[in-house]
Amino acid sequence: MGISSSSSVCFELNGGRLAPRRLDGPPVCGCILPCFLFPRVPPEIRTQLVEQFKCLEQQSESRLQLLQDLQEFFRRKAEIELEYSRSLEKLAERFSSKIRGSREHQFKKDQHLLSPVNCWYLVLTQTRRESRDHATLNDIFTNNVIVRLSQISEDVIRLFKKSKEIGLQMHEELLKVTNELYTVMKTYHMYHAESISAESKLKEAEKQEEKQFNKSGDVSVNLLRHEERPQRRSSVKKIEKMKEKRQAKYSENKLKCTKARNDYLLNLAATNAAVSKYYIHDVSDLIDCCDLGFHASLARTFRTYLSAEYNLETSRHEGLDIIENAVDNLDARSDKHTIMDMCNQVFCPPLKFEFQPHMGDEVCQVSAQQPVQTELLMRYHQLQSRLATLKIENEEVRKTLDATMQTLQDMLTVEDFDVSDAFQHSRSTESVKSAASETYMSKINIAKRRANQQETEMFYFTLMDPSEAFPVLNPQLSLPFLVCTAKICPGHRVEINSH
Amino acid sequence: MGISSSSSVCFELNGGRLAPRRLDGPPVCGCILPCFLFPRVPPEIRTQLVEQFKCLEQQSESRLQLLQDLQEFFRRKAEIELEYSRSLEKLAERFSSKIRGSREHQFKKDQHLLSPVNCWYLVLTQTRRESRDHATLNDIFTNNVIVRLSQISEDVIRLFKKSKEIGLQMHEELLKVTNELYTVMKTYHMYHAESISAESKLKEAEKQEEKQFNKSGDVSVNLLRHEERPQRRSSVKKIEKMKEKRQAKYSENKLKCTKARNDYLLNLAATNAAVSKYYIHDVSDLIDCCDLGFHASLARTFRTYLSAEYNLETSRHEGLDIIENAVDNLDARSDKHTIMDMCNQVFCPPLKFEFQPHMGDEVCQVSAQQPVQTELLMRYHQLQSRLATLKIENEEVRKTLDATMQTLQDMLTVEDFDVSDAFQHSRSTESVKSAASETYMSKINIAKRRANQQETEMFYFTLMDPSEAFPVLNPQLSLPFLVCTAKICPGHRVEINSH
Repeated sequence: MGISSSSSVCFELNGGRLAPRRLDGPPVCGCILPCFLFPRVPPEIRTQLVEQFKCLEQQSESRLQLLQDLQEFFRRKAEIELEYSRSLEKLAERFSSKIRGSREHQFKKDQHLLSPVNCWYLVLTQTRRESRDHATLNDIFTNNVIVRLSQISEDVIRLFKKSKEIGLQMHEELLKVTNELYTVMKTYHMYHAESISAESKLKEAEKQEEKQFNKSGDVSVNLLRHEERPQRRSSVKKIEKMKEKRQAKYSENKLKCTKARNDYLLNLAATNAAVSKYYIHDVSDLIDCCDLGFHASLARTFRTYLSAEYNLETSRHEGLDIIENAVDNLDARSDKHTIMDMCNQVFCPPLKFEFQPHMGDEVCQVSAQQPVQTELLMRYHQLQSRLATLKIENEEVRKTLDATMQTLQDMLTVEDFDVSDAFQHSRSTESVKSAASETYMSKINIAKRRANQQETEMFYFTLMDPSEAFPVLNPQLSLPFLVCTAKICPGHRVEINSH
Repeated sequence: MGISSSSSVCFELNGGRLAPRRLDGPPVCGCILPCFLFPRVPPEIRTQLVEQFKCLEQQSESRLQLLQDLQEFFRRKAEIELEYSRSLEKLAERFSSKIRGSREHQFKKDQHLLSPVNCWYLVLTQTRRESRDHATLNDIFTNNVIVRLSQISEDVIRLFKKSKEIGLQMHEELLKVTNELYTVMKTYHMYHAESISAESKLKEAEKQEEKQFNKSGDVSVNLLRHEERPQRRSSVKKIEKMKEKRQAKYSENKLKCTKARNDYLLNLAATNAAVSKYYIHDVSDLIDCCDLGFHASLARTFRTYLSAEYNLETSRHEGLDIIENAVDNLDARSDKHTIMDMCNQVFCPPLKFEFQPHMGDEVCQVSAQQPVQTELLMRYHQLQSRLATLKIENEEVRKTLDATMQTLQDMLTVEDFDVSDAFQHSRSTESVKSAASETYMSKINIAKRRANQQETEMFYFTLMDPSEAFPVLNPQLSLPFLVCTAKICPGHRVEINSH
């Protein structure tokens, strides 16, 4: 299951769970040189080297686990994006096909010119755009991000294996040096022991020589014992010869010992330097080999994901801007004209009523000679004074109307559409605050505002309605009548504020 | 089913399909005053008024249809957002619970410090954030946007009804005036006819008078007929009386006719002015009444939707920026130190090997007296020349190594993660281009690049591996050995480029 016992491809294909081994777990086979090769290496160092490999392996297995989690994550996220994309596509298509298929399609086509319908079509366009973008996200996750992740997994396995090979060589080198140190130490100890032994033997010979020397001192005192002299001389010679021999042996052993000690001391320093170099540089290099490209490749994978998400966002934003522009262009006046143009035979004024003279009546204008003139003038003055009253009343109504309209406009254009608050995430995991609770859109607030709005609206309509705002007029006291009358009474002008 | 025949609430609750009536459809009941009230209005005007109401009704029904479509759209979109949100939540939770639940949680907690794990956790955090944001979208669509849309529907119905009431009054006024015109015309015709009749009667009387006058001329010729004179005088008187009577009648009728003609002419002008005012101002006002607040309320609804979407985007962007920052901070070196700190008992250098003197050996330094000195110096010079060769070789290897490393780095950090192209929508409805096809991520390109990368990597490792790059050295010719030797040979310095 571990990296060391399975091939890279099998590892990926099996996809088994790779629990990182714990530090106190069983030793990792194959990660360390067998003990019998270098039996004289201190066990602490041997254990550390084993643990170092375990640590590297654990690290690589953690990475593989991470990469596997990321792959699973993006595989599932890709599925979610695709589901979302399909739902959006279906949603947009449902309404688009309704628009296309409806028997009043042609009519709707004309309606396209109306600003609210334009907004609605753009919302559908945006939905299709979002659908496409999330499908693209699915595609990028599946065919790019996941592929990269599985490649990084392969890389981690391959690099760990390669690093292990290099590490094993480093360890072999280190153990060889350490093992060698023990050998040269033993050599030094041996030569030193031999040197001591040779020295003691030399000292023994010197003692014997001294003994002989003391005897020859007695000789000078006792010269009379003449017959003993040749025997004694050969004995002295023998002792001297032995001493010389032992002296040579000692010197030889001492030199050997010195060389061995030098060797040991130099090896000691070299081993310490090698161990130090290994711990300070080589282990770090080994980890670097394991890491080679991991962070860079992972960064590129994450950046691919980020690029996809950022691009989705940009595309979304562009679409929303188009809708916002259309919303800015919602225009009641322009729509009214469009409708009136569309049905222009319904809204065009009819032909004027023409004067129909009776049987050869040649008079076709108002005659204002006496006695009719007096009556006309009287009626005109009557209208004039009525108009003055109306103007005052009208002015009052107009003021109230304007104020009411302003109130209505304020109600209708209140900027109550900012929902930023709903997106302020506290860092805690508390559930989403309902956009409707405690806010502008709460049930009570809505009811209150709507009641208020409709009341104002009704008041406005009451003011608009001539039959309620003013007493019903005699048709011959109506404004058009007045206008005409004024025209045919020369010298009398009337200022009309047409409603 | 139409607006005119159902109450506002029923309309909304029934939710039936509201096909806008066609212009040539049957007349709309209740939208126009019954014909018998004003029988003398020209049929063209009557038809136009009917069609105007139909047009307004059709417009309102189109709006209701639009609002209903929008409600359905946002209801379904809210569902889609919720599904998406739940899928994302489930996805994030699956991995989060795995992280929490795993027995190596504590270990993982430490691993949190490692930069790739940090990125992974932030991706999960972002997923939860997206989940929350899309749930918020659902909430806003359901509890805000849809509520607004249904309110606008109510408004459209209420305003159409109110406008219809006002319109009916306008029509009544207009029809009354038009009807009246016919009456005054008929009156004028009648008085004119009477005036003509009176005139002809007067003329007849004048003719008789003239006849009588001619007879009296004969009288002066025939004065002899004396007895006839009183008879003739009374006859003349009678004729004169009749003529006077007829003259009076004629004058009276003529005045009546003049007044009636004046009345007719004034009414004609007034009616034309009223009709003109209706077509030019009142119809427009009527449409304004129908429109009152529609565009403003719809705009606010769309802006709520836009605000939600823009805020979602901002939140998304913030989250992505956090991830991008973490990706920028992916750091192999820092992670290596973290790992080595975490397992510091495994990576800390062991105690130095100490010199172990043999049985009272008091010499614990390298002795460099003769005869050993000569040998040491010889070995030193041997090492020195070997080092010079090594340095040259090493320099070559180093150069190749650096170049190879640079090539590898270039491969590992190639900026191949920009996927903008995948989001360039053509305006056509062509299907999404696969991010993998014909691009950097195509199967062939990937295979080629990976083969290239691994080849370079292998070459790099070959250069790194001392056992392959250099011949295996005598341990006593190794660099540490040289360093130590140099130290104990006074006056000889060696420059070491530690690898």
